[in-house]
Amino acid sequence: MKLATLRTGKHGTTAALSLGVDGYLPLPARDVGQLLNLPDWKALVAEAAAQGGGSGVVPAHEAELASLLPAAGKVICAGLNYADHIQEMGRELPEYPTLFAKYADTLIGAADTIEVYGSGRVDWEAELAVVVGAPLTRAGEDEASRAIAGYTVANDVSMRDWQNRTLQWFQGKAFDATTPLGPVLATADEFQAGHGFEVRGYVNGEPVQHGNTGTLVFGPARLLSYISQFTTLRPGDMVLTGTPGGVGMGMMPPRFLKDGDILSTEIDGIGRLENRVRIRQGANAAR
Amino acid sequence: MKLATLRTGKHGTTAALSLGVDGYLPLPARDVGQLLNLPDWKALVAEAAAQGGGSGVVPAHEAELASLLPAAGKVICAGLNYADHIQEMGRELPEYPTLFAKYADTLIGAADTIEVYGSGRVDWEAELAVVVGAPLTRAGEDEASRAIAGYTVANDVSMRDWQNRTLQWFQGKAFDATTPLGPVLATADEFQAGHGFEVRGYVNGEPVQHGNTGTLVFGPARLLSYISQFTTLRPGDMVLTGTPGGVGMGMMPPRFLKDGDILSTEIDGIGRLENRVRIRQGANAAR
Repeated sequence: MKLATLRTGKHGTTAALSLGVDGYLPLPARDVGQLLNLPDWKALVAEAAAQGGGSGVVPAHEAELASLLPAAGKVICAGLNYADHIQEMGRELPEYPTLFAKYADTLIGAADTIEVYGSGRVDWEAELAVVVGAPLTRAGEDEASRAIAGYTVANDVSMRDWQNRTLQWFQGKAFDATTPLGPVLATADEFQAGHGFEVRGYVNGEPVQHGNTGTLVFGPARLLSYISQFTTLRPGDMVLTGTPGGVGMGMMPPRFLKDGDILSTEIDGIGRLENRVRIRQGANAAR
Repeated sequence: MKLATLRTGKHGTTAALSLGVDGYLPLPARDVGQLLNLPDWKALVAEAAAQGGGSGVVPAHEAELASLLPAAGKVICAGLNYADHIQEMGRELPEYPTLFAKYADTLIGAADTIEVYGSGRVDWEAELAVVVGAPLTRAGEDEASRAIAGYTVANDVSMRDWQNRTLQWFQGKAFDATTPLGPVLATADEFQAGHGFEVRGYVNGEPVQHGNTGTLVFGPARLLSYISQFTTLRPGDMVLTGTPGGVGMGMMPPRFLKDGDILSTEIDGIGRLENRVRIRQGANAAR
């Protein structure tokens, strides 16, 4: 099944089941993250689907997609994780995953505008995101694999000037409202184990990134197991698995997003993000 | 005033006002973070103090200190921030603060045991922590200064083996239940602007770290202003300001915490943390 978080009114949201062209069936949870924290959420969704929504169904053209996980407690990102991308950069395959954190505040909906304040080097990173469906503490890979609720699409938009101000990438990765996420959570049961996802990124319709998650050095279950050795993962937490080759920083000459550009991010079997970019002046050029 | 978060029963907590030797006066909030999110929390505390707690007062010897901010949304740490420590290491003073994130899950109380699973290089980092008292988005230094609720003591205990597995420190800094915090939030009005804090660290009573926050390259207000340029800070969020010289990794030969060691962390005018260290085998030596 495919689950989404829809906006309701000015500030509200609701979890919903995608009915494809027929729209979305609202579910009794504030968002997909809260839904995943309900006991036996799959039965709850199946029951709602069986009853059907009738007049409650939100037509696709009226649905406004919010961030899939507006209140995610932990959003952990892997870097340097595509073997082909690493080798293309002439680096050794890593022994351990490179990890950093961002906040739920960075996350926006699948069609929202990416508004960046105070950066002149805004770059793209199309990524598969893995959503956690069960608590994980010092878990092995099998337990971690069973704890995957599903998969979604993210673009880890990165402010390269801020990212490279110091050795720690965090400040260039944690800008509020710059990481598009969605459009849906495709539940794990829709894919066979070891299924590789085709990840694609486009700028103004021009293909710029393409990779297959089958080439990840650290796959979804391995990342969740590794992370759970030091910090507990809970339902609704999320891990971004890293980006393939083709980022703007790596181009000759380097290329960055301009005000008005359209960034698209696509994964077969999940869906597509399409986000306009707005570059704003920072209110304070704090140093 | 000095505020604490006390344990109540098995899993509950309450915010409380420290009455010194007379104990703690419980306040109508789950913890200090929730208290700081109440409108006019200072008036609420003053009123509770005026009424007195009577039989409600918790004697000091019965009080169990929880993490001061068990549900902090953002815990952001600054590295390489003591000018004397940087110069002692022969480095240039930085133009920008080095920042990384940890989670509220890392935080424990002032007398709790630090339990580390799967690391053999556990090091200490005594730090002043600044607690946010008002929302900050792209704020200047004056606004940031006014938004400081107060100060507390933290030890950014670091798993150097994990920290140095990759270029990103996050995984060595985000181990659950390894960062002691407290014992109290000393509200900003107790200190004059520009007040420098004496920060001290001890292992089994032996002094190992000492610094004064007057030598910080990026002081509290500057850090909050800088961070607020990219991510919104809210009441109950916290910034750790970095550690002075004297960490175990820098000793010749390097020295790390052993099972059973007592780590103490002290700041004049705020208080002291005293935490026993337990080194456990990791359940999974995940690679």
